[in-house]
Amino acid sequence: MRLKEGIFKKLQMVSTASLTSELLKLGFKNTFMEGVVPVTTDSHLVGYAFTLRYIPAREDLDFEVEYDNWKNPQRVAVETIEKSNVLVIDSRSETSAASFGQILCTRLKYKEAAGLVTDGALRDTPAIKELDFPTYARSAHGTTSSVLHHPVDFQVPIACGKVMVQPGDIIVGDNEGIVVIPIHVAEEVADKCYERDLLEGWIQKKVEAGASIRGVYPPDESTLAEYKAWRNKMD
Amino acid sequence: MRLKEGIFKKLQMVSTASLTSELLKLGFKNTFMEGVVPVTTDSHLVGYAFTLRYIPAREDLDFEVEYDNWKNPQRVAVETIEKSNVLVIDSRSETSAASFGQILCTRLKYKEAAGLVTDGALRDTPAIKELDFPTYARSAHGTTSSVLHHPVDFQVPIACGKVMVQPGDIIVGDNEGIVVIPIHVAEEVADKCYERDLLEGWIQKKVEAGASIRGVYPPDESTLAEYKAWRNKMD
Amino acid sequence: MRLKEGIFKKLQMVSTASLTSELLKLGFKNTFMEGVVPVTTDSHLVGYAFTLRYIPAREDLDFEVEYDNWKNPQRVAVETIEKSNVLVIDSRSETSAASFGQILCTRLKYKEAAGLVTDGALRDTPAIKELDFPTYARSAHGTTSSVLHHPVDFQVPIACGKVMVQPGDIIVGDNEGIVVIPIHVAEEVADKCYERDLLEGWIQKKVEAGASIRGVYPPDESTLAEYKAWRNKMD
Amino acid sequence: MRLKEGIFKKLQMVSTASLTSELLKLGFKNTFMEGVVPVTTDSHLVGYAFTLRYIPAREDLDFEVEYDNWKNPQRVAVETIEKSNVLVIDSRSETSAASFGQILCTRLKYKEAAGLVTDGALRDTPAIKELDFPTYARSAHGTTSSVLHHPVDFQVPIACGKVMVQPGDIIVGDNEGIVVIPIHVAEEVADKCYERDLLEGWIQKKVEAGASIRGVYPPDESTLAEYKAWRNKMD
Amino acid sequence: MRLKEGIFKKLQMVSTASLTSELLKLGFKNTFMEGVVPVTTDSHLVGYAFTLRYIPAREDLDFEVEYDNWKNPQRVAVETIEKSNVLVIDSRSETSAASFGQILCTRLKYKEAAGLVTDGALRDTPAIKELDFPTYARSAHGTTSSVLHHPVDFQVPIACGKVMVQPGDIIVGDNEGIVVIPIHVAEEVADKCYERDLLEGWIQKKVEAGASIRGVYPPDESTLAEYKAWRNKMD
Amino acid sequence: MRLKEGIFKKLQMVSTASLTSELLKLGFKNTFMEGVVPVTTDSHLVGYAFTLRYIPAREDLDFEVEYDNWKNPQRVAVETIEKSNVLVIDSRSETSAASFGQILCTRLKYKEAAGLVTDGALRDTPAIKELDFPTYARSAHGTTSSVLHHPVDFQVPIACGKVMVQPGDIIVGDNEGIVVIPIHVAEEVADKCYERDLLEGWIQKKVEAGASIRGVYPPDESTLAEYKAWRNKMD
Repeated sequence: MRLKEGIFKKLQMVSTASLTSELLKLGFKNTFMEGVVPVTTDSHLVGYAFTLRYIPAREDLDFEVEYDNWKNPQRVAVETIEKSNVLVIDSRSETSAASFGQILCTRLKYKEAAGLVTDGALRDTPAIKELDFPTYARSAHGTTSSVLHHPVDFQVPIACGKVMVQPGDIIVGDNEGIVVIPIHVAEEVADKCYERDLLEGWIQKKVEAGASIRGVYPPDESTLAEYKAWRNKMD
Repeated sequence: MRLKEGIFKKLQMVSTASLTSELLKLGFKNTFMEGVVPVTTDSHLVGYAFTLRYIPAREDLDFEVEYDNWKNPQRVAVETIEKSNVLVIDSRSETSAASFGQILCTRLKYKEAAGLVTDGALRDTPAIKELDFPTYARSAHGTTSSVLHHPVDFQVPIACGKVMVQPGDIIVGDNEGIVVIPIHVAEEVADKCYERDLLEGWIQKKVEAGASIRGVYPPDESTLAEYKAWRNKMD
Repeated sequence: MRLKEGIFKKLQMVSTASLTSELLKLGFKNTFMEGVVPVTTDSHLVGYAFTLRYIPAREDLDFEVEYDNWKNPQRVAVETIEKSNVLVIDSRSETSAASFGQILCTRLKYKEAAGLVTDGALRDTPAIKELDFPTYARSAHGTTSSVLHHPVDFQVPIACGKVMVQPGDIIVGDNEGIVVIPIHVAEEVADKCYERDLLEGWIQKKVEAGASIRGVYPPDESTLAEYKAWRNKMD
Repeated sequence: MRLKEGIFKKLQMVSTASLTSELLKLGFKNTFMEGVVPVTTDSHLVGYAFTLRYIPAREDLDFEVEYDNWKNPQRVAVETIEKSNVLVIDSRSETSAASFGQILCTRLKYKEAAGLVTDGALRDTPAIKELDFPTYARSAHGTTSSVLHHPVDFQVPIACGKVMVQPGDIIVGDNEGIVVIPIHVAEEVADKCYERDLLEGWIQKKVEAGASIRGVYPPDESTLAEYKAWRNKMD
Repeated sequence: MRLKEGIFKKLQMVSTASLTSELLKLGFKNTFMEGVVPVTTDSHLVGYAFTLRYIPAREDLDFEVEYDNWKNPQRVAVETIEKSNVLVIDSRSETSAASFGQILCTRLKYKEAAGLVTDGALRDTPAIKELDFPTYARSAHGTTSSVLHHPVDFQVPIACGKVMVQPGDIIVGDNEGIVVIPIHVAEEVADKCYERDLLEGWIQKKVEAGASIRGVYPPDESTLAEYKAWRNKMD
Repeated sequence: MRLKEGIFKKLQMVSTASLTSELLKLGFKNTFMEGVVPVTTDSHLVGYAFTLRYIPAREDLDFEVEYDNWKNPQRVAVETIEKSNVLVIDSRSETSAASFGQILCTRLKYKEAAGLVTDGALRDTPAIKELDFPTYARSAHGTTSSVLHHPVDFQVPIACGKVMVQPGDIIVGDNEGIVVIPIHVAEEVADKCYERDLLEGWIQKKVEAGASIRGVYPPDESTLAEYKAWRNKMD
């Protein structure tokens, strides 16, 4: 399933905080990844989840410095990913070794992937910060992933940052963190959130100017009327 | 792959501590589940891993008090499991709700499953303690699994208690906890561990009787000779 | 608000696990205290929450070995509590010192309080185990509460074990742990849970006897009909 | 109780680290909030604690996207707060949802509050960073506070960052974090700390220039004499 | 330094909770090990700390299944320890492998050591429970210590359970846990604690019989007079 | 033991991530400190470990605002340290008070120490950030170290960030964190890592230019031949 272009654009303009509120209205309470933060400053990403699953490493299967590119699910995932996909890795929130590094990020960027999200650690973070590619992780660790993680399969439903991620779900990231939008509500959420952000921006201006939050945040009928007048002029 | 009967019997006689030591000699360092403890006192189990994987719940898919028995992977797994299988659940070490309960344990027992292992919590633990069915978990929580967990698939490789578990691996449990033996080394490990336990039992007796650990634990050549004489008489 | 006698009796017969399920049906998902376990084996309690709130100690206010019985909220609470009350302490889940001890438990017992629940540690646990008074805590710690805790007020809404507790809420404990029932739904939950446990006990018997969970757990129409016939005979 | 202007100025010039040392001399060991860090770079705040207490949310009371401004303690607190107050929130160190956001911060700023301190998470942190209003929190989370927190009362003694905070205590923040000064020692601590910082700054210069710490840090009699000569000239 | 026989006897009669209170009166607040619990039921120990220090293992130095008995500090410590010593191990509170096991415990017992305390895990706990030798630990783990721990030296000051332990300090354990008494105050503390326990036992009886805690716990002048009369008769 | 000048220079040019990979090839898996991060942006350090060990403070030995410079191991260590040494502190990963501060850092800098590494917290971090001296720590805390830590000895093997550190080991830090190189493999690792980084830089360029990772990362024979031709021209 692919979203319409306009929807994608709207998602690029709204904040992850606003998105969680619209998702909450639809009954989804657990949509923001806890503790998964942007590695690069001024990060923003919108894309389709392409999931990769790690389990604990075992000495006879992992513990090599480098993986086999033709068989290892981590490497096959990197070569399979397509434009606008976000590689989302279930690292079991383990941070005692890395889950991904610079050269693979570079490859993802070349393939026009939208970004990388892991609930584990990243290595080569000083170089990744220079890469102009949106990456989100829990922390940094120098040690290669194979001492901790066994890549086992990809494009299956996973956990990441304590949130369910289904392949194809919409991943949105900003400087606050990452929100996961179930694909079947993404269009509705994008539309509503775009409108919500217009309203909240307008309220923010009023509060900056000295309005009490009473009657304004949340807006009562008269405030809403005032807003609608302004909103109608805007289009 | 199935083990020979004699191998199974040997595994029933050795301790999980000894098994980790023999696995360590083969290079496997991470084979014992951390923090997964027996619910019932005087627990012992040996069986083949039958894996079940949970990811975080989502309000449109879970959050029902009861699951659909014909479609939900948790329920299908319970009805699919066979004699001598151990149901091993990847609960992401999350304990803020249960991962399994009494009636499903009762069904597993009726089907002659060898036991249940989860790295999450169990509910109905007072009743499960009365059930005469080996169960291992991290803790107890009254709340049903569906508020926290979405059962997603079974018989795939999983993480449990920070250890990799492949379907068909050998699971051994005693009052200390759970060890996972990769199936392809299970026979070798069982044989060596059985011999090791004979030796360690004999050493234990010597140390009880006042022997210094020097020369005895680990045994030097002369102690080994003494042991072998004793061992030969035993068979 | 006080419950009818029959309701109280029903609550003494059901399990905390069942109660969480009936509360879940009413929309309450977070009702079971995480990590708060019975100190005494074979614990059961039902009572009205009498809350006590601790905040971090400060050297000029606390750090005495013993508190002033006429002014300190901990001591005043103990002397104020009435029959069928459960003293529920918000210890901020801190366990690096105790939150309560034996002599105060003895006083609570004499006053016919229903029990004690804290999400911190208890001291004198070996003696408390002998006391025949239901106590629930996170762990044991020998050090007196005043080095860690400042009792600040009582009979205000608190957090305990990550659950909201309002004064007067119904607290039910069994060997699994503690559930908190908002007082305004306690009667409904007690009635439904009593019926639920009858049904689940009947299902448990069927599954023990070899029934598949399919059609039985949850029960389909024909199973329910069979159950109702049995249930009608029972009254 | 209000401090003299000169005291306030001194508190604006000293570091939180120095303040903890002067408080330690008076016997207060636990005055610095653990893990509560500035959201905005180059943060500094001095003000009177205005406390707000959260407990766990419950579905029938919370879980709305927006709160009632006339009744909800969070909203009433925001409208009640006065100039030079610091809103200090007891969020139970929970970070799986936010505890406060941008528009309410904007309102606090307009009301000339001195800042915001929470031991939970904040949402809208990218916008808050632009706000020129001192905010301190444990982390960022996009999800609104009502899924996790029930605001229950304000201007009561609370825990924040494992430190006791009484309404009216002096809160001082810098780029290192937050220190809480009991109001009755604030004047003494401010005076001593101001002098201490002069001394430490002078020592720092000496050590930069190559002095051994021996005799200098801490200063012996001859170093103190040298310092006093310099200090006397300064006034 | 060795304690007089009578002091040792008194320490065997008092509880760890009481000891922490007497130590607190002397200014020692941090004397009880957090999370270090008895492995065997009905545990009691009094002895002199004999310390052993572990640091993280390194592959070229550790990771053998068995240590060299003549050189490895763990093994040399076991053979050096004397009657009435308690082996106290600084395991850095790490529990992802064991820190000690059955055969070494057996050797300690034969040498009339008073017990074993570790803030890590133990292996062979089912066998250790049968051993009639007081052991305290954080948890159980089957894997041998060498994959996690490098024994580095013994009889140096260490951390155990977040408490400082000096070689020769008095270690007292009961069913609640472990308290560390600095040797230079042990005699004073033993005497006072013995008297304290007599008083508290007498108070406990009064409270059981229905006395209010007011005037009784802590005792006021008239209660103390009553107690003294009883106490005098007792000698 | 001291390294040759050229080796030191190579270590200044490589990344900690690369170093962990070369150490892994030699069998060392646990060489990167978890959670120990640079306090100052753009940090780089290479030096010899000079270790300092802390254990929990005790009221009769610590809890002074300032230590005795002639006797306290912390202070003696600071005055004993030599050029190119890195002060590495075992703070038991405890962060509820500081482990070191600005003036001592200034002294280390003056003595041309290479840097400071602690697995605890630092105080005066705003000033330390201005100091142009490489410092690594877990977090910031205003409170002086003596309320939490007792400096006990120096130049003994320690744990720091869950890694073994022997006095004289090579410590390398960059913006990702800290790696510990056992001194006896430092030369080999430096040489190999320097070559490795040349190769990885060359691969990185190829991947940036659009090469698949297949055949390139890790390089197959033909890629390696291409690289060697380039590498030969470089010298």
